[in-house]
This record gives sequence, C-alpha cells and structure tokens, in this order.
Amino acid sequence: MYYHDKRLQYPVRVGTPDPLFARQLQQAIGGIEGEIRVCLQYFFQAWGARGPDTKYRDMLLHTATEELGHIEMLATAVALNLEEAPASLRETSASASPVVNAVMGGERPRHVLEGMLQRHLLSTGLAAYPANADGVPFDCSHVYASGNLAADMFANVTAESTGRLLAVRLYNATKDPGMKDMLSFLIARDTMHQQQWLAAIEELGGTAALPIPNSFDQTQEKSEYSYVYLATERNGMPPAAGRWTEGPSIDGKGAFRVSQNEPLGDEPILGPARPDSGAQSEQM
Amino acid sequence: MYYHDKRLQYPVRVGTPDPLFARQLQQAIGGIEGEIRVCLQYFFQAWGARGPDTKYRDMLLHTATEELGHIEMLATAVALNLEEAPASLRETSASASPVVNAVMGGERPRHVLEGMLQRHLLSTGLAAYPANADGVPFDCSHVYASGNLAADMFANVTAESTGRLLAVRLYNATKDPGMKDMLSFLIARDTMHQQQWLAAIEELGGTAALPIPNSFDQTQEKSEYSYVYLATERNGMPPAAGRWTEGPSIDGKGAFRVSQNEPLGDEPILGPARPDSGAQSEQM
Amino acid sequence: MYYHDKRLQYPVRVGTPDPLFARQLQQAIGGIEGEIRVCLQYFFQAWGARGPDTKYRDMLLHTATEELGHIEMLATAVALNLEEAPASLRETSASASPVVNAVMGGERPRHVLEGMLQRHLLSTGLAAYPANADGVPFDCSHVYASGNLAADMFANVTAESTGRLLAVRLYNATKDPGMKDMLSFLIARDTMHQQQWLAAIEELGGTAALPIPNSFDQTQEKSEYSYVYLATERNGMPPAAGRWTEGPSIDGKGAFRVSQNEPLGDEPILGPARPDSGAQSEQM
Amino acid sequence: MYYHDKRLQYPVRVGTPDPLFARQLQQAIGGIEGEIRVCLQYFFQAWGARGPDTKYRDMLLHTATEELGHIEMLATAVALNLEEAPASLRETSASASPVVNAVMGGERPRHVLEGMLQRHLLSTGLAAYPANADGVPFDCSHVYASGNLAADMFANVTAESTGRLLAVRLYNATKDPGMKDMLSFLIARDTMHQQQWLAAIEELGGTAALPIPNSFDQTQEKSEYSYVYLATERNGMPPAAGRWTEGPSIDGKGAFRVSQNEPLGDEPILGPARPDSGAQSEQM
Amino acid sequence: MYYHDKRLQYPVRVGTPDPLFARQLQQAIGGIEGEIRVCLQYFFQAWGARGPDTKYRDMLLHTATEELGHIEMLATAVALNLEEAPASLRETSASASPVVNAVMGGERPRHVLEGMLQRHLLSTGLAAYPANADGVPFDCSHVYASGNLAADMFANVTAESTGRLLAVRLYNATKDPGMKDMLSFLIARDTMHQQQWLAAIEELGGTAALPIPNSFDQTQEKSEYSYVYLATERNGMPPAAGRWTEGPSIDGKGAFRVSQNEPLGDEPILGPARPDSGAQSEQM
Amino acid sequence: MYYHDKRLQYPVRVGTPDPLFARQLQQAIGGIEGEIRVCLQYFFQAWGARGPDTKYRDMLLHTATEELGHIEMLATAVALNLEEAPASLRETSASASPVVNAVMGGERPRHVLEGMLQRHLLSTGLAAYPANADGVPFDCSHVYASGNLAADMFANVTAESTGRLLAVRLYNATKDPGMKDMLSFLIARDTMHQQQWLAAIEELGGTAALPIPNSFDQTQEKSEYSYVYLATERNGMPPAAGRWTEGPSIDGKGAFRVSQNEPLGDEPILGPARPDSGAQSEQM
Repeated sequence: MYYHDKRLQYPVRVGTPDPLFARQLQQAIGGIEGEIRVCLQYFFQAWGARGPDTKYRDMLLHTATEELGHIEMLATAVALNLEEAPASLRETSASASPVVNAVMGGERPRHVLEGMLQRHLLSTGLAAYPANADGVPFDCSHVYASGNLAADMFANVTAESTGRLLAVRLYNATKDPGMKDMLSFLIARDTMHQQQWLAAIEELGGTAALPIPNSFDQTQEKSEYSYVYLATERNGMPPAAGRWTEGPSIDGKGAFRVSQNEPLGDEPILGPARPDSGAQSEQM
Repeated sequence: MYYHDKRLQYPVRVGTPDPLFARQLQQAIGGIEGEIRVCLQYFFQAWGARGPDTKYRDMLLHTATEELGHIEMLATAVALNLEEAPASLRETSASASPVVNAVMGGERPRHVLEGMLQRHLLSTGLAAYPANADGVPFDCSHVYASGNLAADMFANVTAESTGRLLAVRLYNATKDPGMKDMLSFLIARDTMHQQQWLAAIEELGGTAALPIPNSFDQTQEKSEYSYVYLATERNGMPPAAGRWTEGPSIDGKGAFRVSQNEPLGDEPILGPARPDSGAQSEQM
Repeated sequence: MYYHDKRLQYPVRVGTPDPLFARQLQQAIGGIEGEIRVCLQYFFQAWGARGPDTKYRDMLLHTATEELGHIEMLATAVALNLEEAPASLRETSASASPVVNAVMGGERPRHVLEGMLQRHLLSTGLAAYPANADGVPFDCSHVYASGNLAADMFANVTAESTGRLLAVRLYNATKDPGMKDMLSFLIARDTMHQQQWLAAIEELGGTAALPIPNSFDQTQEKSEYSYVYLATERNGMPPAAGRWTEGPSIDGKGAFRVSQNEPLGDEPILGPARPDSGAQSEQM
Repeated sequence: MYYHDKRLQYPVRVGTPDPLFARQLQQAIGGIEGEIRVCLQYFFQAWGARGPDTKYRDMLLHTATEELGHIEMLATAVALNLEEAPASLRETSASASPVVNAVMGGERPRHVLEGMLQRHLLSTGLAAYPANADGVPFDCSHVYASGNLAADMFANVTAESTGRLLAVRLYNATKDPGMKDMLSFLIARDTMHQQQWLAAIEELGGTAALPIPNSFDQTQEKSEYSYVYLATERNGMPPAAGRWTEGPSIDGKGAFRVSQNEPLGDEPILGPARPDSGAQSEQM
Repeated sequence: MYYHDKRLQYPVRVGTPDPLFARQLQQAIGGIEGEIRVCLQYFFQAWGARGPDTKYRDMLLHTATEELGHIEMLATAVALNLEEAPASLRETSASASPVVNAVMGGERPRHVLEGMLQRHLLSTGLAAYPANADGVPFDCSHVYASGNLAADMFANVTAESTGRLLAVRLYNATKDPGMKDMLSFLIARDTMHQQQWLAAIEELGGTAALPIPNSFDQTQEKSEYSYVYLATERNGMPPAAGRWTEGPSIDGKGAFRVSQNEPLGDEPILGPARPDSGAQSEQM
Repeated sequence: MYYHDKRLQYPVRVGTPDPLFARQLQQAIGGIEGEIRVCLQYFFQAWGARGPDTKYRDMLLHTATEELGHIEMLATAVALNLEEAPASLRETSASASPVVNAVMGGERPRHVLEGMLQRHLLSTGLAAYPANADGVPFDCSHVYASGNLAADMFANVTAESTGRLLAVRLYNATKDPGMKDMLSFLIARDTMHQQQWLAAIEELGGTAALPIPNSFDQTQEKSEYSYVYLATERNGMPPAAGRWTEGPSIDGKGAFRVSQNEPLGDEPILGPARPDSGAQSEQM
C-alpha cells in the first residue's frame, strides 16, 4: 500500500510561463515515452512478479513509487506554464508583434492561443491531463508486463531510453532556467533507471538470459534459421555488412550468416467460402 | 518499393482446425507483441533513418520486409484453423460430449462457438483480422521509431523478446504438429532478430551508447542523482540488495548507491482559478 | 431537430433468450458494420452538406432518423436476450448436461456465462451498450463524411453492404423465430439503402462522377499512370487477367493495361540528424 | 511525492482459484468503473487544484493514494485466481464432466480455457493487466478533472457509485469466501467515498453550487429555457409526470414546467462548396 | 422510433467566421463533455431501463431526443465558422499583419491555418466531425448506462455539469454575438438538465438512494470502514479538516472519523511461474 | 512473401521544406483515408480470400504491395518537409515577420513551431509516424475485409475515393513543385485503383452482385420493405424527389416508392431488474 508527502520530490519552478511548453510537457506525462507509462508498467510488473527471488518485486515497487512523484512534478510544471495563457479569443490580437501587444494593453498574439492544446483551456481549467502533446489520451495497452523478467527489463530499458530522449529534447526546447533545472534532474533519474534495468539483466545472466525466454528448449527450435540474416532485396543484392552479418552470435551459441530469403512454402489455398458465411455466390 | 511472391516464406499446415487456436494466433498478428507491430516499426525506423551510415536503414528494410511475410503466414494459419468452425448456433449442441455429437450428426459443442472471437464469424467470414486475441484492434501508437538508433534498437530487442515469448506460449498451447512446426520456425527467426538488434547495439558502442541518448552533455545532468537507487519504503527500510544497489554502474561512469527518497521540493501552490475559467467561485 | 414515438419501428420478439446471441447482436449496434455508425454517418453528412441542391441533405436526414430507430430495436433485442442470463458463478454448474441441470434445480451450464460479454453482467445490468461483439467500444473515427457527395455515397453503399452481410450472418446464426423476423426486416431495409445510395450515385452522374473527386482537372494528373495495373510479382510473372487488365476503363476515358512495377525514384537519403534532436552521435 | 509499504491494505485470499473470476475482476482494475480510473482521477484533480483553500487538494491526495493500494489488492487477486488456470489446450479435455477429468489425470474442461481472457495466458504470464473484463485497455480519457471543484465532486460520486455497483455485482458473482471478504471491504470504502464527495459538495454550498459552474452570470443565460422540460414525443403527448415536470426547481431559483419542443431556428443552408475543397462539381 | 424537422431547435448565426472557434466548438460535439455523449448516454439508459415505473424511460427518451438536436446546432455552427477558412497554404501569407494581408489581396495570416484542426480541411470539406477540439474521435466507452437508475442520474448530473462548464468557457472565448446567443441557450438547457437529474434523484429517495446501489444488504459490508476517512500522509500528519472528517455521514447511517491508513494485509507472495508459461528460468 | 528495392516507386522532391505540410501529409499516411489503411486492407483481403477463382487474391496482392511503396514515398516526403523545422523554442522569435527573422540570424517565427505536430519534434526526431494530421494514431479497426468480395470491392472504391479526395486537397494546399509532382502521380494511381475495383465489381456481376450479399435467399427478406424509401419528417411532409423515390430499383428487382415511417412495434417493456443485478430497489 502507499503513502504520500505533500511536498515534491524536486523543486518545480517556472520563470516565464509558456503554454506551448505546457503542451510539450504533456508528452512526458501522457505520451508513450512518458511517466504514466513507466509508473504503471513497473507497478504491474511488481504486482504480477512470480519466482523465488522477491528482490525484483522489491526493486520494481521502489521505482514505480518514485515515478508517481515524477508525474506529479510534471503536472505541476504544466499548470505553472499555463498560468498566463490566453483563455479566450477576446484576450488575443491578430498581430503577432509584442510591441503592438504592449500598446494594446496586454493582449497576447492570437497564435499563442492557436498553438495550445485546446483542452487545456476547455476541459481542465489550465491544468495537466493524461494525454500526450497532441492531445491523444494515454492508453494502458502500453503497459508492458509480460511475466518474463528479462523481457520486462528490456522493455524498461526501452521505456527509460525513449523517456530520457524525450527529456533531453524538452531540455533543448526550453530557455526557462527553472524548467531546465527540473529536466536535468529527471534526465539524471532516467540515467539511473537505464543503468538499473541493465544491472538487473546482468543479474539475470546477461547473455545467458538470451534468447528470451530462456526457458524454451532450443532443440525444438528450427535452429538452421536462428542465426541467419535473411535478405529481401529484390534482386538478391547482398545487404550492407554489419556485426549481424558475420561472426559469432551475441549469445555465443551460433554464427551469423546471410542468406537470400526464398519461399519455403506454397501459395496458400483456402477452402471455399461456406454457404452460410455471407460471401458472394462466386466464392463458394 | 516492394515486390511479392505468392508462395509463403515457410509452410503453414493445420492438421486439426481449432477456432480457439485461431483466436490465440491473433495475438501474434495484432497484439502488441505481434508481427504487424514489428513490421511497421522496422519500416518506419528505416524510412526515417538519418545519419551518415545507411547500413542501419538497409538492415531495417530487409527485416521489415521479412516480417510482412510473417503476418501472411499467421493470417493463413488463422484462416486454416477456422475452416471447420461452427458458424451459427444452429450447428451446435448444448452437450459437450463428443459422443453425443457424433450421434447428433456432426454438431459441435456450443462452448466451441462461445470461445471464439465473434468477429471471426460475423465480420471476416472465417479469416484473420488485425486485432489481438481478445478482439482489440492493433493501434499504431505501438510503432516505436524515436529517431535515436540506440533507443530504437532496444525497442526492437523488446519487441522480439515479447514476440518470442508469445511464440513459445503458442507453441506450448497447441498439440497440432503443423502449427508446432510453423512456430518453431518463427521462434528461430525471433532468436535471430534478438541477436541482430543486440549486434547493432554492439556496433553503436555497447555501453558507450549509454545513457541513451549519448549526445547530451552529461555535465548538464544533475549527476548526483544519476547513479543513486532511490528507496520509497515508507519507514526507510533498506531495499533488497542487487546489482543495482552497489558496485560500478553499467556504463562505468559512476557507482551505484542507495538513498531514501525525500522531498527536495515544496508543496506546490498553484495560482487561484481565473474568473473566466469556469471554476467554482470558491476557487478564485 | 428531432421527435420520438415510444413504439418501435418493427416488433422485437425473443422466444428463447440466449446471452450468446445478445453478444452477437452487439456487432450490429457497436460494430463498424453496425447501426450507430450508419446513423451518425448519415447525420454528419447531412449536417455538413453543401451545394445548391438540398435534396441530398433531405434524403440523408430521413434515413439517419430511421437508423436511430434501428439501434433502438437492436438494443431492445439485446436486453430481451439477456433476460435469463446467469448473473453469477453461483447460478452455474460445471456440468454442461441439460439433464444434470434439470436435476440441480435450474442451474445453467457454466460455459454459458463464460461465453458472455462480461460487461453485460458487470457494467450494464443486462442491457445493450455501444460496443461490438467482442466488447470493443464504437469509435467515431468510423463516421465517414468527406464533404464529397459521391465519395460519401460509396461509403454509404459500403456501410450498407457490410451491414446487410452482418444481418444475414446473424439471421443464419439464430434459430429464434422472433429474431429471424426482426432480422428479415432489417435485411430488407439494408437492401433499400444499398439501392438508395446507388440511385444517388446515378443522379450524380454515374460514371461521370468518376474519378472521385470529379472536380480536379485531370490534365494535372500523371495520366500515363491512370489506367495501368502495376504488377509487383517478384519475377515479373504476369498477373491473373481480369476486367482490370485490359479493355476500356470504367470511366471510358482510358484503356487498362498491365505493367511491371519498377522504381521511378532513387533511394532516399535524409539529412543527418540535428545535434539537438536527441539522436545518437553516430547519426550526426 | 510517494512512499510504499510492501504489505497490502487488506488481506487478499483466494480459496478456489477461478480464471473466469480473474477475468471479471479485471473490470474493477481497468474498467471505466475501476480503480485505475479513480486513482488517476483524484491525482489529476489534486495536482491541478486551484483556489485559496488547499484542503480539497489535501483530501484528494489522501484518497488517490489509498486507491493505488486498491489496484494492488485487485491485481493480487487476479494473479491468485489464475494460479491453476489451464495454460494450454494440451491441459484441457473436450469433456465438461468433472468425473471424466478426475479420471483423465487432472485435465480441466476445455471451456474453462475458452472463457478466459486470452491475454492472461499469452501476454502476462497469469497476472493482471490494465484492461477491462473483455480485454479492452484502460484509456485515460476517462480521467475527469475539469478545473471546477463541484463538477469534479459529482464526477467522483459517479465514479464511486458505478464502482460500488460493480463491487456488489462481483460480490454476488463469487462463492469464494476470501474474495467475498475482500470485496466487502472495498464496498465499505466505496460507501465512504460516496459520502466523502457528497460532503465536499455540501461544503461547496450544496444547492448553492448549482448550476455548475456557479461563477457564470445567470442573467446572461436564456433563462426562459432554464427550467422547462422539453418534450419530444412526436404528437405532443404529455410526458410522464415527475419531480422534474412541476414544482420548484432544485436550486430554488425557478419552477419546473413542461413544453413541447418546437423549432426556434430555420433549416440551415450552408454556403456552396469551395472550388478547391475536393467536392463534386454538383456541390459548387 | 424517431422523426425529424428540418429546422433547428434554436437559431445558429455566425457573424464573423473563425476557424479556431470551429475547432473549439468540436469539444462540445465530440469531447467527453459534449453532446454526442449525453445523447447516446440517455438513449442507452432509456433502451435498457428496467423496473415497474416506466416514467424514467419516458424522461430519458424526451431528453435524448432533444440532445440530438443540439449536436445538429453545433455541427451547423462549426460549418458556418469554417466558411472563410484558408483551405491551403497558397492562400496564406507568412506575415501576421492584417494590414499587409489587406494589401496582398485577401491573403490570411498563415497562423490561422496552423491553428486549425487539419481534418477540417483535409477530411471533411469544412464541416464538423465527431471528434474533440484536439481531433481525438469520440469513443463510445464514455456512454454510461449502468443499469442502476441512481448511479445513472449522478452520471447525468456529471455530464451536464462538465457540459455546462464547457459551454460557459466557449461563451467566454468568443466575441461573436450569434455564437454567444446560441451558447446562452445551450447553457440554459444544461441548467435545466442538471436540475432534472437531481429531481430524479430526489424521487429515487435522495439520501435514501445512498449508498449506490441501495439494494445491497449493508450488513454484508465491512461497516467499520464505511465512514472512516483514511489518511495516507507518510508521517501520519492529520489531514485537513472538512465536512468529511467528522459529524454525521451524509446518508445519516454513520459518523465520519479519521484514521491513518495502515496495512491490514501481508506482502503478497505469488506462486512460482509455471514451467510452460514462458518466464525466465529464474522465476520457477 | 515479400521483397524490396531500396529505390522509391516515384521521385520525392521537396523544394521548400514546410513543417505544416509535413503535418498535412500525415493524413495520407495514418489517416483513415491514407495509405496504411489501403495497404493493410488489401493484404488482409488477399490473405483471407476464399473461392475457386484465385485471381482476386492475385490482384489484391499486387496492389497491396504497391501501396506499401506509397507509404514509403509519403514518409520520405514528411521527413524532407521537416528538415528545416525549428526544433525548439530557442530557435523561434515571437515576431512573425520574415524580415525581422532574417535580421535576427535565421530565427523562424514562433507560430511555425506552434503549428507543428509536437510529436514530430518530441517523439520521432523529425520523421513520419503512423498517425493522422492531428496526431491520432492509425487504428486497424479501419481495415475492412469482410469475407464477401463484392462488399470488399465497394469498401475499396470508398477507400480510393476518399484517398484521391485527400490527395487532391493536398495538391491544392501546396505550392511546392516537387510535392505537386509526387501528388499528381499518387492521384493517377488512385484513379486507376478506383477503376480497378469497379472493374472487379463488373466481373462479379455488376447489379447481379446486388444486394450484397447475393447469397441470401431474398424470399426470406421482408420484401415489402426492400424498395420503400421511409420518410421521417415529423408532419409527414413528402421528401424531396430523387432517383430513389420512384422508378425501377437499381437491381431491377423492384420499384422505388415513398412511405411515411410509422411504428410497427409496441413500446418495449423489459422485465424488472434482477435482485442481484445491482440496480436500485425501485427497479425491481
């Protein structure tokens, strides 16, 4: 079960509120690279963890709980960035010139309103909501919890990689010192979390964890296809060489080689349509 | 651009059609672990590939094109597994006894119909469609193509890990020799693809690719938080020890340590609601 | 604006309630082939109709309003089919034998409950809801209203074709005389609606409406590609002959011919990744 | 920010694991009436709370944090109910007879597998995931946080009403004493939460909070339509009488009356389609 | 069944077409606070209404039918607001100055096009479509019809509260007198509908309807948790006092009190992963 | 199975990159009128094709494979249009004047950034992704493959009609010669594809294919309702005359006539709510 502290994990300060940056921060809340995703992903992995060693469940709970606080930080940042947003067309001017605006008594350029997520104005009263930077709600199908620890750890590395990438892009996008400070903290945490899941993979055996799952008897696998890089270029032109075209495989159990993809099966012929299946007569 | 061959990459044979297995195979077509996802993911990564070395685009195109053929194999397998499905309540009997059915002239137990995806009967005429095993359509937000090669390669390892895990579960679920044969081929290809993306990570520098992205100046990062495992247990009870709690970090740039999570920020106080924002009077 | 009459457009009678048929009927309510879709599609086409001749808006309003009554009929049919559904595991028996059930005092086989949409029990109190036969909610992106009358009329033919196909499959699936009677009425209306939208296409010029839109100056079109059937078979094997491989085109403006698809463009080379775009260093 | 305790808020015990009940419990996790929804809804309301009185934010944080523990309890209950599920067709028998199964060495009736959420087998390794009882993922558009406290409190009463209704249906559905015990606790908490949000409405002025929002100058409202119940029966037949057809309005500012709905506007005539809008020529 | 009148319920006039306001109005059509939602919600509640007193079904049909006319009004308003929108980049100028535009022969500032929903241009031919102000299609999972009248009435109050809030925000956002007039009518109707559903709650017993559902035997409830406000602040700091922390409960059946949330259950230990479930070896 | 050629089907050249046009092109990739839809639709129709004549499967494979190359062309066009996009607020100026920008050293007007899809910046590194012009991901429920060839061919005509309409709107929207050239090629291909599916309908019997499906015995249909145009105008005012109100029906099997819609059924009365269904007491 869970507890809260009303204070934030790290200070959130906005010098110059910017509704466009509020929109961009939404990606870090409700985007697929965002914090709702990692928070719920780690929780569901923890709640479904099976196996004798409970330390993975333990680790997942600690970090999932931390991530909940990151959503909170970002939601606060969104609300602060919206504090001076134009709430209506009445407050805007068609001119984009700040000089004109100053003269016109504080009106803001109309394009500021046009660039906002309209739901920030119409649905939330100038606050964050669980959607991405283009307004698409977060959909929990993105919560990966497969029941296989190694697969889950790779999913977590991916989540933290795209998450850190997003945080870096947000850091680059803003000039606000407070926002830069908050993001440099979140970037550091993403660094740790990338390290952490990779450390767990190391504990799960590193390459011994491969292929995932490692609990399937590989003699049942069509092993002649297990380390061959299949090329599909129309005329059989050899593919560009890379680590994946020759040399030992990463798991040390085979050697990479290249082969042109060729049909091993025939053209499929399905049975005729059944009389009561609603097809056209010609299909029966 | 693209070409086709009407034959299949690998033979698809179904000995005993089973509509429940048709339903389960849908997960490998339209599930988030499925083939539509990897096919489109590799294509979009290829089409957006930037950077001087075009061999990553090359590699992605080869494998994306191969995956398209895997969707085809699975769609064929679904159609073949549906060939003898009961299409209507008229063909079923409430009895579950095969003996009774034999006597009743071929009627099949009603629960076979109940266990089917109803859209296999009602919407497709006994064929595959791009949805998962519970009928949820595939949603292209699952196509990860971040513009960062290393992040994308980890996303690909994840996709092939959950994909191979699914293929193994399907292999375990069926008794049909033809289906087992097809799946053992797909499992082998997933082995290769896991290896392949890890090989690409190795080429991208392995741990030198970390943290992702590696093009952000880490001195800008709040580095005191970059290798600390934050514990959230309510009473500060130390977390379970693991590779991630002590020792050098995976990227070799720091050392893991543990710290209890404590608020570094204050309770956030947002400004009062604006008069024209539609809030209750009490909020202004 | 709109009015109602509490009576139904056509009688809805269920002799033997069947919760599985309730589930199947949901496809005709909230499936993409269903009545919510056509109802909203015709309304939005009407509400956005532009052009001097208001008779298309008139026609669309009449039929949209009729379709609303069809959703009502089907929702009633679902509720009636659910009247005797087992609401809980307590009411079921693991045995599937009706004889055993008779002895056990009216318990129903457990698989009847297993084959139900669980939301019929848990979320609606044994009534219809706007989702399909596998429980996926209707999503209004399926409402086609393009602003082009001819395109919309083809979309409507499609909707009524898949709708009549579904109604026929439901007719085939049930043994209940009341349900068969209701469906034979809905099938007749789908016949009319197919005819009606085709009649509108005839009024819009039939083949003169082609290609859609017909308001684009076709001399701007790369017309050498307008009537050529491009073949993609890997080895250039000629495609199967059909009405579309030779003879005059349907719009009478050209002649069909076949050509093997060949690249007309080069391999695309995108610019290097921008330094601040978060890509890996190798991509710059 | 947040903390956790590895123990559960209330004991979760499952006497007889039942995979169908695991499926039904998913509705309380990822259904629109479920715990993910209330948890995120209260958090987003708290994080965006504006106004001089911070006690609403305070209250929302306490209860949101509690709800997170409810998801955990339910996820645990799902995992425990799946512990003996048949993971494959190999473990099932077409017969539904427990006697036969006993003889056949522990095989379970095939319909048990057919009645399961297939993703419990194929995607999660027998654990909970954030989707509803028919497998539809939770979509965060259901998180209501409007920026108006009174509207939000009514949204919360609604969420707890449908939530308690669902918990009662689940209580009725199961025979397992452990599950009944857990649900009777959750039902009690839903009772409290209904009370709590109604208490907040009382503090916000009760009927003085009406209409919502109460910060709009009602003299701007077309008040002749503010308390009239508009009837739409085709022939003007009077509607059934109720508290809403006569007597003082609930807010005490008007009196209910009935009127037949009649058009106050004309048939809308839109401008012709623009030449470059892609419409058919007939529309210009 | 249903009838229509080609005229509108209330006049819709637009003085100065504004494509950004067209976008904002979409929220009132296809947003979760919008008219499609209430229309379908009241219809599905009506069509599934059970119970001896048919007056609730009667009431729901009257108001659902009225709401259909509101969608029509708003769709008309969207189309009228789009009448002078720039349909292409060719019609715009990079300059934002109206003076420059006047000189340049009627070109409009490019940012007007940038602020539009692109589907208004590309998909609808300058007409409304069933999506919200950020282009997200309406999804019918938002149609609440629970089978419990009191829960449904609270859901309806919520829908009309967020709906009126949205209408007020739109009223505040526009300067157009015609739009203000239309909105002041819709606001009045929302006032009535809030009153109406509250009146229905009064008829259903008011506090006697509580808790919802009221048909569950409360002695089965863990009543010691039914009126206790559980605090989750990490250190047990007492929560802010409110109507919900002391005094009689709203239903008069208990007294509010505060208690610190403490675990009543143990840390959950799930069984080991099954050998055939695809988990890592370490999990078995 | 499938092969690729790294070159494009047709050249893609962008003279003046425009991030707003990149956004608009997304509709042709991930919109419901776009290329992912037709590509997957034709593939799934091919993979599920049943019936003695395999030429339909053959035709579908050729064209599906071609469409895959169209997605590639459009994705390339998006990436090229994003090459000079402002990646951050730091690169923009509030001024909209290009003169000012020139002076300020290359800064671009801020509204250019505001008009972009934010995920182009934040999630893809300036590349295409499978979503529409307002950022909504493509959802595979739009892949129509009904198992009835004639219904599918009409669905394909619809897809190519809305697709060509979109391509024409994009052609009208841009001034860039390279983009116009690419679009005029795609428009030509859409012309062919419209013709092609209509040719297939001709081969399937033309009006003999009607109504769809044509394999249902029409004597089972309530044929008195098969050719009657039902009018719903409230007062029975006759509908506007059209081809659909009189004359022979399009299939030649009947004659159109008009009739006022009247209830043929009674008001539905559902059974009382079941005691254990969670309804209010008043409903039982």
